Amino acid sequence: MKPDISPQELRQQIRTRQWTTPTSGSASGYLQANLVILPADEAFNFLLFCVRNPKPCPILDVLEPGQVEPIIAPGADLRTDLPRYKVFENREFKTDVEDVSDYFRDDMVSFLLGCSFSFENAMLAAGLPIRNMAEDKNVSMYITNRKCIPAGPFSAQLVVTMRPMTPQQAIRATQVTTRFHLTHGAPIHLGDPVKIGINDLDKPDFGDSVTVRDGEIPVFWACGVTSQLAATSAPLSRVITHAPGHMFVADLKDEDLTIL
Amino acid sequence: MKPDISPQELRQQIRTRQWTTPTSGSASGYLQANLVILPADEAFNFLLFCVRNPKPCPILDVLEPGQVEPIIAPGADLRTDLPRYKVFENREFKTDVEDVSDYFRDDMVSFLLGCSFSFENAMLAAGLPIRNMAEDKNVSMYITNRKCIPAGPFSAQLVVTMRPMTPQQAIRATQVTTRFHLTHGAPIHLGDPVKIGINDLDKPDFGDSVTVRDGEIPVFWACGVTSQLAATSAPLSRVITHAPGHMFVADLKDEDLTIL
Repeated sequence: MKPDISPQELRQQIRTRQWTTPTSGSASGYLQANLVILPADEAFNFLLFCVRNPKPCPILDVLEPGQVEPIIAPGADLRTDLPRYKVFENREFKTDVEDVSDYFRDDMVSFLLGCSFSFENAMLAAGLPIRNMAEDKNVSMYITNRKCIPAGPFSAQLVVTMRPMTPQQAIRATQVTTRFHLTHGAPIHLGDPVKIGINDLDKPDFGDSVTVRDGEIPVFWACGVTSQLAATSAPLSRVITHAPGHMFVADLKDEDLTIL
Repeated sequence: MKPDISPQELRQQIRTRQWTTPTSGSASGYLQANLVILPADEAFNFLLFCVRNPKPCPILDVLEPGQVEPIIAPGADLRTDLPRYKVFENREFKTDVEDVSDYFRDDMVSFLLGCSFSFENAMLAAGLPIRNMAEDKNVSMYITNRKCIPAGPFSAQLVVTMRPMTPQQAIRATQVTTRFHLTHGAPIHLGDPVKIGINDLDKPDFGDSVTVRDGEIPVFWACGVTSQLAATSAPLSRVITHAPGHMFVADLKDEDLTIL
Protein backbone atom coordinates (compact mmCIF):
# COMPACT_ATOMS: atom_id res chain seq x y z
CA MET A 1 0.00 0.00 0.00
CA LYS A 2 1.44 3.34 -1.10
CA PRO A 3 1.23 6.25 1.34
CA ASP A 4 -1.84 8.33 0.46
CA ILE A 5 -1.54 11.62 -1.41
CA SER A 6 -3.85 14.32 -2.79
CA PRO A 7 -5.20 14.09 -6.36
CA GLN A 8 -3.18 17.20 -7.32
CA GLU A 9 0.05 15.67 -5.98
CA LEU A 10 -0.71 12.32 -7.64
CA ARG A 11 -1.31 13.98 -11.04
CA GLN A 12 1.93 15.99 -10.63
CA GLN A 13 3.91 12.80 -9.93
CA ILE A 14 2.29 11.13 -12.95
CA ARG A 15 3.02 14.13 -15.20
CA THR A 16 6.72 14.08 -14.21
CA ARG A 17 6.83 10.26 -14.65
CA GLN A 18 7.68 9.65 -10.98
CA TRP A 19 4.43 7.61 -10.91
CA THR A 20 3.84 5.14 -13.77
CA THR A 21 1.82 2.37 -12.06
CA PRO A 22 -1.96 1.75 -11.61
CA THR A 23 -3.94 4.31 -9.61
CA SER A 24 -6.11 1.82 -7.69
CA GLY A 25 -6.08 2.60 -3.96
CA SER A 26 -4.28 5.96 -4.35
CA ALA A 27 -5.76 9.39 -3.41
CA SER A 28 -8.36 7.41 -1.50
CA GLY A 29 -11.90 8.83 -1.57
CA TYR A 30 -11.30 10.82 -4.77
CA LEU A 31 -13.08 10.06 -8.01
CA GLN A 32 -11.24 7.91 -10.56
CA ALA A 33 -12.42 8.01 -14.17
CA ASN A 34 -12.24 6.11 -17.45
CA LEU A 35 -10.85 8.14 -20.37
CA VAL A 36 -11.94 7.92 -24.02
CA ILE A 37 -10.63 10.44 -26.61
CA LEU A 38 -11.90 10.38 -30.20
CA PRO A 39 -12.36 12.62 -33.26
CA ALA A 40 -14.90 15.47 -32.95
CA ASP A 41 -16.86 14.36 -36.02
CA GLU A 42 -18.07 11.28 -34.11
CA ALA A 43 -18.23 12.93 -30.66
CA PHE A 44 -22.00 13.60 -30.85
CA ASN A 45 -22.68 9.94 -31.64
CA PHE A 46 -20.39 8.75 -28.83
CA LEU A 47 -22.04 11.13 -26.37
CA LEU A 48 -25.38 9.74 -27.59
CA PHE A 49 -24.12 6.18 -26.96
CA CYS A 50 -23.18 7.14 -23.39
CA VAL A 51 -26.50 8.94 -22.73
CA ARG A 52 -28.42 5.88 -24.00
CA ASN A 53 -26.38 3.46 -21.89
CA PRO A 54 -25.86 5.33 -18.61
CA LYS A 55 -25.23 2.26 -16.43
CA PRO A 56 -21.98 1.19 -18.18
CA CYS A 57 -21.13 4.71 -19.50
CA PRO A 58 -21.93 7.33 -16.82
CA ILE A 59 -20.67 10.72 -18.03
CA LEU A 60 -18.55 12.71 -15.57
CA ASP A 61 -17.13 15.31 -17.95
CA VAL A 62 -16.90 16.02 -21.70
CA LEU A 63 -14.47 18.58 -23.12
CA GLU A 64 -14.74 20.80 -26.19
CA PRO A 65 -12.61 19.73 -29.21
CA GLY A 66 -8.89 20.30 -28.57
CA GLN A 67 -9.40 21.02 -24.83
CA VAL A 68 -7.39 18.98 -22.29
CA GLU A 69 -8.32 20.56 -18.91
CA PRO A 70 -11.40 18.94 -17.34
CA ILE A 71 -13.98 20.98 -15.40
CA ILE A 72 -13.70 18.41 -12.60
CA ALA A 73 -9.92 18.88 -12.20
CA PRO A 74 -8.73 22.47 -12.85
CA GLY A 75 -5.08 22.63 -13.91
CA ALA A 76 -4.97 18.99 -15.05
CA ASP A 77 -3.90 17.93 -18.57
CA LEU A 78 -5.50 14.77 -19.94
CA ARG A 79 -2.53 14.20 -22.31
CA THR A 80 -0.01 13.71 -19.51
CA ASP A 81 -1.83 13.15 -16.21
CA LEU A 82 -2.70 9.45 -16.55
CA PRO A 83 0.07 6.91 -15.93
CA ARG A 84 -0.50 4.90 -19.10
CA TYR A 85 -2.60 5.11 -22.28
CA LYS A 86 -3.58 2.91 -25.22
CA VAL A 87 -3.80 4.23 -28.77
CA PHE A 88 -6.01 2.61 -31.44
CA GLU A 89 -6.28 3.47 -35.15
CA ASN A 90 -8.99 2.15 -37.48
CA ARG A 91 -10.10 -0.51 -34.96
CA GLU A 92 -6.53 -1.79 -34.36
CA PHE A 93 -4.38 -1.45 -31.26
CA LYS A 94 -1.36 0.66 -32.19
CA THR A 95 0.69 1.42 -29.08
CA ASP A 96 0.84 1.71 -25.31
CA VAL A 97 2.42 4.96 -24.01
CA GLU A 98 2.91 7.05 -20.84
CA ASP A 99 2.10 10.38 -22.54
CA VAL A 100 -0.19 11.03 -25.51
CA SER A 101 0.93 14.58 -26.39
CA ASP A 102 2.18 13.26 -29.76
CA TYR A 103 -1.16 11.51 -30.48
CA PHE A 104 -3.70 14.07 -29.29
CA ARG A 105 -5.05 16.29 -32.09
CA ASP A 106 -6.93 19.60 -31.95
CA ASP A 107 -9.97 17.92 -33.51
CA MET A 108 -10.30 15.38 -30.67
CA VAL A 109 -12.89 15.31 -27.87
CA SER A 110 -12.18 13.83 -24.41
CA PHE A 111 -14.75 11.93 -22.33
CA LEU A 112 -14.36 11.07 -18.64
CA LEU A 113 -16.68 8.26 -17.50
CA GLY A 114 -17.40 6.87 -14.03
CA CYS A 115 -15.48 3.88 -12.64
CA SER A 116 -16.52 1.33 -10.02
CA PHE A 117 -13.40 2.11 -7.93
CA SER A 118 -15.66 4.87 -6.55
CA PHE A 119 -18.04 2.53 -4.74
CA GLU A 120 -15.43 0.06 -3.53
CA ASN A 121 -14.48 2.29 -0.59
CA ALA A 122 -18.14 2.49 0.42
CA MET A 123 -18.46 -1.30 0.09
CA LEU A 124 -15.41 -1.90 2.29
CA ALA A 125 -16.76 0.61 4.84
CA ALA A 126 -19.99 -1.44 4.92
CA GLY A 127 -17.97 -4.61 5.70
CA LEU A 128 -18.59 -6.18 2.29
CA PRO A 129 -15.98 -8.47 0.71
CA ILE A 130 -14.09 -7.44 -2.44
CA ARG A 131 -12.57 -10.79 -3.30
CA ASN A 132 -10.18 -9.58 -5.99
CA MET A 133 -8.64 -7.11 -3.51
CA ALA A 134 -8.32 -9.86 -0.87
CA GLU A 135 -6.63 -12.11 -3.45
CA ASP A 136 -4.54 -9.23 -4.86
CA LYS A 137 -5.96 -9.67 -8.36
CA ASN A 138 -7.64 -7.50 -10.97
CA VAL A 139 -11.46 -7.60 -10.86
CA SER A 140 -13.13 -10.28 -13.07
CA MET A 141 -14.80 -8.80 -16.18
CA TYR A 142 -17.12 -10.57 -18.64
CA ILE A 143 -18.75 -9.70 -21.95
CA THR A 144 -22.48 -10.45 -21.53
CA ASN A 145 -25.16 -11.27 -24.12
CA ARG A 146 -26.93 -7.95 -23.43
CA LYS A 147 -26.70 -5.48 -26.30
CA CYS A 148 -26.26 -1.80 -25.55
CA ILE A 149 -28.50 0.66 -27.45
CA PRO A 150 -26.36 1.69 -30.47
CA ALA A 151 -25.68 5.25 -31.69
CA GLY A 152 -24.09 6.02 -35.07
CA PRO A 153 -21.04 3.73 -35.51
CA PHE A 154 -20.99 2.77 -31.80
CA SER A 155 -22.32 -0.53 -30.50
CA ALA A 156 -21.18 -3.05 -27.88
CA GLN A 157 -22.29 -5.92 -25.72
CA LEU A 158 -22.56 -4.89 -22.07
CA VAL A 159 -19.37 -5.69 -20.09
CA VAL A 160 -19.75 -6.41 -16.35
CA THR A 161 -17.54 -6.75 -13.29
CA MET A 162 -18.26 -9.58 -10.83
CA ARG A 163 -17.86 -9.76 -7.05
CA PRO A 164 -18.84 -12.95 -5.14
CA MET A 165 -21.02 -12.43 -2.03
CA THR A 166 -23.56 -14.16 0.18
CA PRO A 167 -27.19 -13.26 -0.66
CA GLN A 168 -27.31 -11.14 2.51
CA GLN A 169 -24.19 -9.26 1.41
CA ALA A 170 -25.63 -8.86 -2.11
CA ILE A 171 -28.67 -7.09 -0.65
CA ARG A 172 -26.46 -4.75 1.38
CA ALA A 173 -24.19 -4.14 -1.66
CA THR A 174 -27.26 -3.21 -3.72
CA GLN A 175 -28.20 -0.61 -1.11
CA VAL A 176 -24.66 0.78 -0.87
CA THR A 177 -23.99 1.02 -4.62
CA THR A 178 -27.43 2.44 -5.53
CA ARG A 179 -26.25 5.80 -4.19
CA PHE A 180 -23.35 5.84 -6.68
CA HIS A 181 -25.48 6.20 -9.81
CA LEU A 182 -22.74 8.09 -11.69
CA THR A 183 -20.24 5.31 -11.09
CA HIS A 184 -22.34 2.34 -12.34
CA GLY A 185 -24.86 2.30 -9.47
CA ALA A 186 -26.77 -0.84 -8.43
CA PRO A 187 -25.93 -4.33 -9.80
CA ILE A 188 -27.46 -5.30 -13.16
CA HIS A 189 -27.76 -9.00 -12.24
CA LEU A 190 -27.09 -11.49 -9.44
CA GLY A 191 -27.07 -15.27 -9.34
CA ASP A 192 -27.03 -17.54 -12.42
CA PRO A 193 -24.33 -16.21 -14.81
CA VAL A 194 -25.84 -18.14 -17.77
CA LYS A 195 -28.86 -15.80 -17.69
CA ILE A 196 -26.64 -12.98 -18.98
CA GLY A 197 -24.60 -15.17 -21.35
CA ILE A 198 -21.64 -16.00 -19.10
CA ASN A 199 -20.96 -19.74 -19.42
CA ASP A 200 -17.81 -20.08 -17.32
CA LEU A 201 -17.10 -17.79 -14.35
CA ASP A 202 -13.55 -19.15 -14.23
CA LYS A 203 -12.79 -17.66 -17.64
CA PRO A 204 -13.30 -13.89 -17.47
CA ASP A 205 -12.87 -11.96 -20.73
CA PHE A 206 -10.71 -9.37 -18.93
CA GLY A 207 -9.00 -9.32 -15.52
CA ASP A 208 -8.51 -12.37 -13.30
CA SER A 209 -10.78 -15.12 -11.99
CA VAL A 210 -11.41 -15.12 -8.24
CA THR A 211 -12.61 -17.69 -5.70
CA VAL A 212 -16.38 -18.06 -5.26
CA ARG A 213 -16.91 -19.66 -1.83
CA ASP A 214 -19.66 -22.05 -0.74
CA GLY A 215 -22.87 -20.13 -0.10
CA GLU A 216 -21.85 -17.21 -2.31
CA ILE A 217 -23.47 -16.00 -5.52
CA PRO A 218 -21.88 -13.84 -8.21
CA VAL A 219 -23.06 -10.21 -8.25
CA PHE A 220 -22.62 -8.24 -11.50
CA TRP A 221 -22.18 -4.51 -12.08
CA ALA A 222 -22.06 -2.64 -15.42
CA CYS A 223 -18.44 -1.83 -16.35
CA GLY A 224 -16.77 1.14 -18.08
CA VAL A 225 -14.86 -1.23 -20.39
CA THR A 226 -18.13 -1.29 -22.37
CA SER A 227 -17.41 2.27 -23.57
CA GLN A 228 -13.89 1.29 -24.65
CA LEU A 229 -15.21 -1.66 -26.67
CA ALA A 230 -17.74 0.64 -28.36
CA ALA A 231 -15.09 3.28 -29.18
CA THR A 232 -12.33 0.94 -30.35
CA SER A 233 -14.60 -1.24 -32.49
CA ALA A 234 -15.86 1.75 -34.52
CA PRO A 235 -14.01 2.74 -37.72
CA LEU A 236 -12.29 5.87 -36.36
CA SER A 237 -8.95 7.30 -37.47
CA ARG A 238 -7.75 7.38 -33.84
CA VAL A 239 -9.02 6.53 -30.35
CA ILE A 240 -7.05 7.08 -27.13
CA THR A 241 -8.06 5.38 -23.84
CA HIS A 242 -6.47 4.92 -20.41
CA ALA A 243 -4.65 1.60 -19.95
CA PRO A 244 -6.59 -0.77 -17.62
CA GLY A 245 -6.26 0.32 -13.98
CA HIS A 246 -4.34 3.49 -14.96
CA MET A 247 -7.21 5.93 -14.40
CA PHE A 248 -7.63 9.70 -14.30
CA VAL A 249 -7.96 10.96 -10.71
CA ALA A 250 -10.20 14.04 -10.32
CA ASP A 251 -10.55 16.68 -7.60
CA LEU A 252 -14.12 15.59 -6.78
CA LYS A 253 -14.71 13.15 -3.95
CA ASP A 254 -16.67 9.96 -4.60
CA GLU A 255 -19.29 11.24 -2.15
CA ASP A 256 -19.80 14.41 -4.25
CA LEU A 257 -21.52 12.25 -6.89
CA THR A 258 -23.95 10.34 -4.70
CA ILE A 259 -27.61 11.15 -5.10
CA LEU A 260 -28.62 10.76 -1.46
CA MET B 1 -60.56 16.86 -15.14
CA LYS B 2 -60.52 14.95 -18.41
CA PRO B 3 -61.16 11.19 -18.28
CA ASP B 4 -57.80 9.41 -18.22
CA ILE B 5 -56.40 7.75 -21.34
CA SER B 6 -53.25 5.85 -22.37
CA PRO B 7 -50.22 7.72 -23.75
CA GLN B 8 -50.75 6.03 -27.15
CA GLU B 9 -54.38 7.16 -27.30
CA LEU B 10 -53.48 10.67 -26.14
CA ARG B 11 -50.81 11.01 -28.85
CA GLN B 12 -53.26 9.72 -31.47
CA GLN B 13 -55.86 12.32 -30.43
CA ILE B 14 -53.18 15.04 -30.55
CA ARG B 15 -51.97 13.90 -33.99
CA THR B 16 -55.52 14.09 -35.39
CA ARG B 17 -56.06 17.50 -33.70
CA GLN B 18 -58.90 16.18 -31.51
CA TRP B 19 -56.69 17.24 -28.56
CA THR B 20 -55.08 20.70 -28.72
CA THR B 21 -54.89 21.73 -25.03
CA PRO B 22 -52.20 21.32 -22.32
CA THR B 23 -51.24 17.76 -21.31
CA SER B 24 -51.00 18.39 -17.55
CA GLY B 25 -52.95 15.75 -15.61
CA SER B 26 -53.57 13.51 -18.65
CA ALA B 27 -52.26 9.91 -19.07
CA SER B 28 -51.59 10.05 -15.34
CA GLY B 29 -48.42 8.28 -14.19
CA TYR B 30 -46.75 8.49 -17.61
CA LEU B 31 -43.66 10.51 -18.27
CA GLN B 32 -44.13 13.99 -19.77
CA ALA B 33 -41.14 15.61 -21.46
CA ASN B 34 -39.81 18.99 -22.60
CA LEU B 35 -38.93 19.11 -26.33
CA VAL B 36 -36.05 21.05 -27.93
CA ILE B 37 -35.24 20.60 -31.64
CA LEU B 38 -32.21 22.35 -33.19
CA PRO B 39 -29.72 22.06 -36.07
CA ALA B 40 -27.32 19.09 -35.97
CA ASP B 41 -24.22 21.29 -36.25
CA GLU B 42 -24.87 22.59 -32.72
CA ALA B 43 -26.35 19.36 -31.33
CA PHE B 44 -23.08 18.23 -29.71
CA ASN B 45 -22.76 21.54 -27.88
CA PHE B 46 -26.39 21.44 -26.74
CA LEU B 47 -25.97 17.85 -25.52
CA LEU B 48 -22.84 19.04 -23.69
CA PHE B 49 -24.87 21.87 -22.09
CA CYS B 50 -27.45 19.33 -20.85
CA VAL B 51 -24.79 16.90 -19.56
CA ARG B 52 -23.09 19.75 -17.65
CA ASN B 53 -26.37 20.99 -16.14
CA PRO B 54 -28.27 17.78 -15.35
CA LYS B 55 -30.57 19.26 -12.67
CA PRO B 56 -32.41 21.67 -15.03
CA CYS B 57 -31.71 19.63 -18.21
CA PRO B 58 -32.08 15.88 -17.47
CA ILE B 59 -31.81 13.97 -20.76
CA LEU B 60 -34.52 11.39 -21.43
CA ASP B 61 -33.87 10.77 -25.14
CA VAL B 62 -31.86 12.23 -28.02
CA LEU B 63 -32.55 11.32 -31.64
CA GLU B 64 -30.22 11.10 -34.63
CA PRO B 65 -30.48 13.99 -37.16
CA GLY B 66 -33.73 13.83 -39.15
CA GLN B 67 -35.26 11.16 -36.88
CA VAL B 68 -38.68 11.82 -35.28
CA GLU B 69 -39.52 8.54 -33.47
CA PRO B 70 -38.19 8.48 -29.88
CA ILE B 71 -36.80 5.30 -28.30
CA ILE B 72 -39.06 5.97 -25.29
CA ALA B 73 -42.27 6.05 -27.41
CA PRO B 74 -42.20 3.65 -30.39
CA GLY B 75 -44.55 4.75 -33.19
CA ALA B 76 -44.67 8.38 -32.05
CA ASP B 77 -43.77 11.32 -34.29
CA LEU B 78 -42.30 14.39 -32.60
CA ARG B 79 -43.48 16.68 -35.45
CA THR B 80 -47.18 16.02 -34.82
CA ASP B 81 -47.65 14.39 -31.40
CA LEU B 82 -47.44 17.46 -29.15
CA PRO B 83 -50.51 19.73 -28.95
CA ARG B 84 -48.64 22.99 -29.58
CA TYR B 85 -45.13 24.14 -30.52
CA LYS B 86 -43.11 27.34 -30.66
CA VAL B 87 -40.70 28.12 -33.51
CA PHE B 88 -37.73 30.49 -33.11
CA GLU B 89 -35.30 31.72 -35.78
CA ASN B 90 -32.05 33.59 -35.02
CA ARG B 91 -33.04 34.21 -31.38
CA GLU B 92 -36.48 35.59 -32.30
CA PHE B 93 -39.88 34.03 -31.72
CA LYS B 94 -41.43 33.34 -35.13
CA THR B 95 -44.69 31.42 -34.70
CA ASP B 96 -46.86 29.20 -32.55
CA VAL B 97 -48.25 26.10 -34.34
CA GLU B 98 -50.03 22.76 -33.73
CA ASP B 99 -47.83 20.77 -36.14
CA VAL B 100 -44.18 21.41 -37.08
CA SER B 101 -43.96 19.17 -40.16
CA ASP B 102 -43.34 22.29 -42.28
CA TYR B 103 -40.56 23.52 -39.95
CA PHE B 104 -38.68 20.29 -39.14
CA ARG B 105 -35.64 19.75 -41.37
CA ASP B 106 -33.57 16.60 -42.01
CA ASP B 107 -30.55 18.26 -40.41
CA MET B 108 -32.33 18.78 -37.07
CA VAL B 109 -31.81 16.86 -33.79
CA SER B 110 -34.57 16.35 -31.20
CA PHE B 111 -33.99 16.33 -27.43
CA LEU B 112 -36.53 15.14 -24.84
CA LEU B 113 -35.80 16.43 -21.32
CA GLY B 114 -37.38 15.58 -17.98
CA CYS B 115 -40.26 17.65 -16.57
CA SER B 116 -41.35 18.17 -12.97
CA PHE B 117 -44.89 16.97 -13.77
CA SER B 118 -43.33 13.54 -13.11
CA PHE B 119 -42.85 14.09 -9.40
CA GLU B 120 -46.10 15.95 -8.76
CA ASN B 121 -48.10 12.70 -8.61
CA ALA B 122 -45.66 11.35 -6.03
CA MET B 123 -45.91 14.58 -4.04
CA LEU B 124 -49.71 14.45 -4.02
CA ALA B 125 -49.58 10.79 -2.98
CA ALA B 126 -47.38 11.84 -0.05
CA GLY B 127 -50.03 14.38 1.03
CA LEU B 128 -47.93 17.40 0.04
CA PRO B 129 -49.58 20.62 -1.20
CA ILE B 130 -49.16 21.80 -4.80
CA ARG B 131 -50.52 25.31 -4.40
CA ASN B 132 -50.75 26.17 -8.11
CA MET B 133 -52.93 23.09 -8.70
CA ALA B 134 -55.15 24.00 -5.74
CA GLU B 135 -55.49 27.56 -7.12
CA ASP B 136 -55.89 26.32 -10.73
CA LYS B 137 -52.85 28.29 -11.91
CA ASN B 138 -49.64 27.58 -13.80
CA VAL B 139 -46.62 26.90 -11.54
CA SER B 140 -44.54 30.00 -10.59
CA MET B 141 -41.19 30.15 -12.41
CA TYR B 142 -38.25 32.49 -11.75
CA ILE B 143 -34.93 33.26 -13.42
CA THR B 144 -32.28 32.98 -10.66
CA ASN B 145 -28.82 34.54 -10.37
CA ARG B 146 -27.16 31.11 -10.71
CA LYS B 147 -25.29 30.66 -13.98
CA CYS B 148 -25.37 27.29 -15.73
CA ILE B 149 -22.07 25.88 -17.01
CA PRO B 150 -21.93 27.03 -20.67
CA ALA B 151 -21.15 24.88 -23.73
CA GLY B 152 -20.41 26.35 -27.17
CA PRO B 153 -23.06 29.03 -27.91
CA PHE B 154 -25.34 27.83 -25.09
CA SER B 155 -25.59 29.61 -21.74
CA ALA B 156 -28.43 30.49 -19.37
CA GLN B 157 -29.27 31.52 -15.84
CA LEU B 158 -30.89 28.66 -13.92
CA VAL B 159 -34.72 28.83 -14.02
CA VAL B 160 -36.63 27.36 -11.05
CA THR B 161 -40.20 26.42 -10.16
CA MET B 162 -41.49 27.29 -6.67
CA ARG B 163 -43.97 25.52 -4.40
CA PRO B 164 -44.81 26.94 -0.93
CA MET B 165 -44.69 24.45 1.98
CA THR B 166 -44.17 24.24 5.73
CA PRO B 167 -40.59 23.30 6.75
CA GLN B 168 -41.87 19.81 7.67
CA GLN B 169 -43.45 19.40 4.23
CA ALA B 170 -40.25 20.71 2.60
CA ILE B 171 -38.28 17.92 4.26
CA ARG B 172 -40.77 15.29 3.06
CA ALA B 173 -40.80 16.83 -0.45
CA THR B 174 -37.00 16.61 -0.54
CA GLN B 175 -37.22 12.90 0.25
CA VAL B 176 -39.95 12.26 -2.30
CA THR B 177 -38.37 14.18 -5.20
CA THR B 178 -34.82 12.88 -4.63
CA ARG B 179 -35.90 9.60 -6.23
CA PHE B 180 -36.86 11.42 -9.45
CA HIS B 181 -33.33 12.43 -10.41
CA LEU B 182 -34.14 12.37 -14.17
CA THR B 183 -37.02 14.80 -13.69
CA HIS B 184 -35.17 17.53 -11.74
CA GLY B 185 -34.74 15.57 -8.47
CA ALA B 186 -34.34 17.27 -5.08
CA PRO B 187 -34.89 21.02 -4.55
CA ILE B 188 -31.96 23.35 -5.30
CA HIS B 189 -32.91 25.84 -2.57
CA LEU B 190 -35.45 26.53 0.16
CA GLY B 191 -36.24 29.61 2.24
CA ASP B 192 -34.96 33.13 1.46
CA PRO B 193 -35.57 33.80 -2.27
CA VAL B 194 -33.06 36.69 -2.29
CA LYS B 195 -30.23 34.16 -1.80
CA ILE B 196 -30.79 32.95 -5.37
CA GLY B 197 -31.51 36.38 -6.83
CA ILE B 198 -35.32 36.41 -6.61
CA ASN B 199 -36.38 39.79 -5.20
CA ASP B 200 -40.16 39.52 -5.44
CA LEU B 201 -41.98 36.17 -5.17
CA ASP B 202 -45.19 37.86 -6.34
CA LYS B 203 -43.61 38.60 -9.73
CA PRO B 204 -42.61 35.31 -11.36
CA ASP B 205 -40.78 35.53 -14.71
CA PHE B 206 -43.06 32.82 -16.14
CA GLY B 207 -46.34 31.28 -14.96
CA ASP B 208 -48.53 32.69 -12.20
CA SER B 209 -47.93 33.85 -8.63
CA VAL B 210 -49.51 31.73 -5.88
CA THR B 211 -50.41 32.27 -2.21
CA VAL B 212 -47.67 31.67 0.36
CA ARG B 213 -49.45 31.06 3.69
CA ASP B 214 -48.25 31.96 7.17
CA GLY B 215 -45.67 29.44 8.36
CA GLU B 216 -44.73 28.38 4.82
CA ILE B 217 -41.41 28.81 3.04
CA PRO B 218 -40.80 28.77 -0.72
CA VAL B 219 -39.17 25.58 -2.02
CA PHE B 220 -37.33 25.77 -5.37
CA TRP B 221 -36.68 23.08 -7.99
CA ALA B 222 -34.59 23.34 -11.19
CA CYS B 223 -36.86 23.83 -14.22
CA GLY B 224 -36.69 22.60 -17.83
CA VAL B 225 -37.39 26.12 -19.11
CA THR B 226 -33.65 26.64 -18.52
CA SER B 227 -32.92 24.48 -21.58
CA GLN B 228 -35.35 26.49 -23.70
CA LEU B 229 -33.70 29.79 -22.68
CA ALA B 230 -30.29 28.34 -23.57
CA ALA B 231 -31.49 27.08 -26.98
CA THR B 232 -33.52 30.12 -28.01
CA SER B 233 -30.88 32.67 -26.94
CA ALA B 234 -28.18 31.06 -29.12
CA PRO B 235 -27.72 32.31 -32.71
CA LEU B 236 -29.30 29.31 -34.48
CA SER B 237 -31.13 29.32 -37.82
CA ARG B 238 -34.11 27.54 -36.22
CA VAL B 239 -35.17 26.13 -32.83
CA ILE B 240 -38.46 24.30 -32.17
CA THR B 241 -39.79 23.76 -28.62
CA HIS B 242 -43.06 22.60 -27.08
CA ALA B 243 -45.41 25.42 -26.01
CA PRO B 244 -45.56 25.77 -22.19
CA GLY B 245 -47.65 22.97 -20.64
CA HIS B 246 -48.09 21.22 -24.03
CA MET B 247 -45.62 18.40 -23.38
CA PHE B 248 -44.63 15.16 -25.11
CA VAL B 249 -46.13 12.14 -23.31
CA ALA B 250 -43.96 8.99 -23.46
CA ASP B 251 -44.71 5.29 -22.95
CA LEU B 252 -42.48 5.12 -19.86
CA LYS B 253 -44.02 5.51 -16.43
CA ASP B 254 -42.65 8.13 -14.06
CA GLU B 255 -41.66 5.29 -11.73
CA ASP B 256 -39.49 3.72 -14.47
CA LEU B 257 -37.05 6.58 -14.03
CA THR B 258 -36.63 6.56 -10.27
CA ILE B 259 -33.31 5.44 -8.93
CA LEU B 260 -34.58 3.64 -5.83
